[in-house]
Amino acid sequence: MKAEIISVGTELLLGQIANTDAQYISQELSKLGIGVYYHTVVGDNWDRTVDAISLAASRCDIVILTGGLGPTADDLTKEALCSYLGLECVMHQRSYERLCERMKKHNITAMTQNNYKQAMFPESATVLDNDHGTAPGMYYEREDAHVFAALPGPPSELKPMFSNYVMPLLQKKSGKVLVSRVLRMYGIGESSMETRVKDILDAQTNPTVAPLLGNGDVTLRITAMADNLQEAKLLIEPTEKALTERLGEYIYGYDDDTPQSVLVELLKQKGLTVATAESCTGGLIASRITDVQGSSEVFNEGFVTYANEAKVKHLGVKEQTLIDYGAVSEQTAREMVLGLIERTNCDVAIAVTGIAGPGGGTHDKPVGLVWVGVAVKTSDGIKLSVTKNNFVGNREKIKFSTSTTAIINAIKMIKNL
Amino acid sequence: MKAEIISVGTELLLGQIANTDAQYISQELSKLGIGVYYHTVVGDNWDRTVDAISLAASRCDIVILTGGLGPTADDLTKEALCSYLGLECVMHQRSYERLCERMKKHNITAMTQNNYKQAMFPESATVLDNDHGTAPGMYYEREDAHVFAALPGPPSELKPMFSNYVMPLLQKKSGKVLVSRVLRMYGIGESSMETRVKDILDAQTNPTVAPLLGNGDVTLRITAMADNLQEAKLLIEPTEKALTERLGEYIYGYDDDTPQSVLVELLKQKGLTVATAESCTGGLIASRITDVQGSSEVFNEGFVTYANEAKVKHLGVKEQTLIDYGAVSEQTAREMVLGLIERTNCDVAIAVTGIAGPGGGTHDKPVGLVWVGVAVKTSDGIKLSVTKNNFVGNREKIKFSTSTTAIINAIKMIKNL
Repeated sequence: MKAEIISVGTELLLGQIANTDAQYISQELSKLGIGVYYHTVVGDNWDRTVDAISLAASRCDIVILTGGLGPTADDLTKEALCSYLGLECVMHQRSYERLCERMKKHNITAMTQNNYKQAMFPESATVLDNDHGTAPGMYYEREDAHVFAALPGPPSELKPMFSNYVMPLLQKKSGKVLVSRVLRMYGIGESSMETRVKDILDAQTNPTVAPLLGNGDVTLRITAMADNLQEAKLLIEPTEKALTERLGEYIYGYDDDTPQSVLVELLKQKGLTVATAESCTGGLIASRITDVQGSSEVFNEGFVTYANEAKVKHLGVKEQTLIDYGAVSEQTAREMVLGLIERTNCDVAIAVTGIAGPGGGTHDKPVGLVWVGVAVKTSDGIKLSVTKNNFVGNREKIKFSTSTTAIINAIKMIKNL
Repeated sequence: MKAEIISVGTELLLGQIANTDAQYISQELSKLGIGVYYHTVVGDNWDRTVDAISLAASRCDIVILTGGLGPTADDLTKEALCSYLGLECVMHQRSYERLCERMKKHNITAMTQNNYKQAMFPESATVLDNDHGTAPGMYYEREDAHVFAALPGPPSELKPMFSNYVMPLLQKKSGKVLVSRVLRMYGIGESSMETRVKDILDAQTNPTVAPLLGNGDVTLRITAMADNLQEAKLLIEPTEKALTERLGEYIYGYDDDTPQSVLVELLKQKGLTVATAESCTGGLIASRITDVQGSSEVFNEGFVTYANEAKVKHLGVKEQTLIDYGAVSEQTAREMVLGLIERTNCDVAIAVTGIAGPGGGTHDKPVGLVWVGVAVKTSDGIKLSVTKNNFVGNREKIKFSTSTTAIINAIKMIKNL
């Protein structure tokens, strides 16, 4: 099966956003063994949208549209698709009710005509609930087995709708299951990781093994195509074992794991709590930990000690240490993390201090220099690790790399208890 | 002039990378008043690439190709373009010499036939030097004034080549400038914003006014096309004034502003500092504030008081308040923010407490219920605001909405001092 993804939105053609929707859908379709042959972007324009649909249908079996499902007059994707398909839209009761409920929750009393059009669909289409926004999507299979789908543009709405509702429908259509297992690594570069397992990567056909590009993570995705889940898992197993033999020390998690989800899970298992003291990350470590559902079981408190006085006051860092070595130093990181574990009830303490830039760097202490401290209470006293890191990139990237390293270091120390 | 961007690369269709090249070129072309009408992505396939060029040339005046200029057999973009144009490639002396030099620098002694093909160009084309990689690009204007360009795919090579060599050629061709002004709003929904200014939106042709979709922001972008910058600004001014009259109360910033950048700037101007006490946001407010370069001037410390004990210990929230009203209550938010401003040196205090979910909600206190407190020291004592909010979405979205509301509330209070 061949697929084309048509993204509708003038904001794409103005370069205001990158077409990450097409990227995401392409990744997902490849899991089903569906080849994506074209991405097309058109503006919020009726004729060009209809023409794009018509061209796509002439050369592909699956046509997926993204964007242009909102309430404004500019949003015309669904209407253009239905016009091309010759289908009339009527009010879809469930969508109407969900829309009313949502408006009520947001205290919006006056629904406009434009709001209502979001709940209008052809009777023969499958309406895809939008669990994260107002505009539902649609999925339609034509008599010639061609599939057409229209999905909302915002990634936070598109992704769950695609994976929860569109993927199962397409999977049923393809008759095969594609099962993936993602190995997530940290602390190794992508090229050296690939060099270590190149022979495995090259030799595989089913399952295939390929890196999956993402948010700073180094990953390998093992993907097996089979008639059923059981068979797919049997295909994946030996490959995963072979990869783990070579890369196990760098693997911190699997599939949808994040460093923070692995840390929270580990703390829960061991009945431990964690606290944070952050300088250059400014609260990002605590924010990432508390992104994890149920993190309140293991996280009670954190400090953002941006100024020197805050480090002294809340963590007991000695003023003389700050004078002698500076805030960005091994000594300060050590006193921060030890002060944190002594002054709070936590079992695991994480502290970071560094230079996020773009200003503030010197020859001896360049932008990107970060000290990461982790301390763990054990029956033999406090176990401590303070590491020096040199991160590259802009301010946000340095903050993010620091937070990842701190969380991974904590995971390693807890695992090695 | 209408433009189409064709990106050639199977890695795009597999979703391994997003099409940021098309985004970048679109942004740049819009500055010249050149409208981008289509983005197209095809794989590394001769027939589909030639077909895409042919279709683009039939509907646009400017056709820009990215990717597929490398040395491997897969790289066929330039050859497909020249084949379509009926132009023969010959060795381009400067490119050949630059290529040899580069290979020498990288200690590559054996040049293959494939390396040489990168230096082959039609005699009638303008060869664009690649100052950051091996493959030069090409620019060609056909007798009918249609422009065709082929550029390398890696952004680090594409961007300087485009801005240094292609932009000057296109600017000469277009003779116009396009200038934009973005108004950023918060506290109003997109549809009710549009309803308020629909007549202005509909009536405009130059400048045009349209919403710009973004990360939870409601925006309007005013875009003027003119002969020069000065004239464009004069066109924008009255429209901006008219929009501000109707929407001014919701506008928090302009162009690349974020809530946090506006807050930090405002604090700097007034010589004030801010501190944070976060429950449900878990450090996100502090992290967003410290994303702003130079925020250390205005931010000294923050607390993540996730557990009740932390609220009592660090902020002086009364235990009885927590028993009587619960952690998610107006009373607790009030004591958090007042405790924060009393116990730290800050001039502005921000505190939030709420239920980020997905668990923990009850009938009276549903997921998404968040109390946001802001306190400001003034000559007349402490000015206080505590607001109740009901946010929707998943955990991360509720955290994000909470942090934005807290920052915007702080901006408003400081502005109204």
